[in-house]
Amino acid sequence: MNFSSKLLEDAVNEFGKLPGIGQKTALRLVLHLLNKDQSEVAQFGNTLIKLKSEIKNCVVCHNISDFDTCSICAAVKREKEIICVVEDTRDVMAIENTNQYFGVYHVLGGLISPMDGVGPSDLNIETLVERVKEADVKEIILALSANMEGDTTLFYLHKKLKDFNIPITTIARGIAFGGELEYADEVTLGRSIVTRVPYENTLMK
Amino acid sequence: MNFSSKLLEDAVNEFGKLPGIGQKTALRLVLHLLNKDQSEVAQFGNTLIKLKSEIKNCVVCHNISDFDTCSICAAVKREKEIICVVEDTRDVMAIENTNQYFGVYHVLGGLISPMDGVGPSDLNIETLVERVKEADVKEIILALSANMEGDTTLFYLHKKLKDFNIPITTIARGIAFGGELEYADEVTLGRSIVTRVPYENTLMK
Repeated sequence: MNFSSKLLEDAVNEFGKLPGIGQKTALRLVLHLLNKDQSEVAQFGNTLIKLKSEIKNCVVCHNISDFDTCSICAAVKREKEIICVVEDTRDVMAIENTNQYFGVYHVLGGLISPMDGVGPSDLNIETLVERVKEADVKEIILALSANMEGDTTLFYLHKKLKDFNIPITTIARGIAFGGELEYADEVTLGRSIVTRVPYENTLMK
Repeated sequence: MNFSSKLLEDAVNEFGKLPGIGQKTALRLVLHLLNKDQSEVAQFGNTLIKLKSEIKNCVVCHNISDFDTCSICAAVKREKEIICVVEDTRDVMAIENTNQYFGVYHVLGGLISPMDGVGPSDLNIETLVERVKEADVKEIILALSANMEGDTTLFYLHKKLKDFNIPITTIARGIAFGGELEYADEVTLGRSIVTRVPYENTLMK
């Protein structure tokens, strides 16, 4: 692109570095910001700078937090003896949005993926084992993605945790609500028959 | 969305204000930035702040510029007696990318649109008339969008400029290169026949 302004070019390049944003979209976003007030743009820039410099990871569960301990770990109402293990903050938010879970979390910060050079030592697994060892944990829920990396991590975590004799569960896999059997893939449909549940258990409380 | 962090929420909301970016995309972008170094995020934020506080509009053509006079108006090689009138900076960049135009520009900063409350006085039209009055202009090219607002603006500009007895042209409308007649709309196809040009004129120089 032919920029008449270096300042414009720099800003477009910065936006263009973001995932899924090409040069044309970046230009549109920058021109949008240029039409805003100076104070609004300053706020945008400063919010990002502040975010990166001030944000922390919870010392207990590693979730993104404004304080040393995140709001979930600090809440009196949450059941501390149930730990849900997830990949990242996005998963915490997704589960929180369901309003169906009242325990606490443990954020691994990724999944074991030898292809990407991510091993168990790169994840927050040791701290999970420490938590299980020290606290009175009644259940560990492994809520990981249903793919190769998720399964590998599941297998590794199970091996690490099984000697504590605490129930280890995983989230249910099956046909999504609103999903039609006809269009479901064979693996999901097959597994959903094998792991069928009593009808009474499926009624929302 | 259920944010465990106010800092995260603020950043997501800032990105969510941008056109075409929803909450989920905003979250993805913010988490991407969180994985970057502090210095990279600071650069992102500061580039935007600097852009808005330092950028200017060229005193001659109103194009976005780092200096009082933009690089196109300041260039000795550009033909100052041909002025191409466009809606905004994006159009300048699009025409510059063709490498087919060597005159200068005049950026209106919008199009006349009574529906949106944009009248002639909101646009850089008076300064265009001044330029035409004062400088030795040989041709005015009106390169505006082919829609209601573009046509209204075209009509208004023509009325304002016709008494100077300078050739006023508009960019050619017709079937795009690579476009198939079969799929062209009737108006474009009809106009492309009415405004047909000698074959020799279509050969690239």
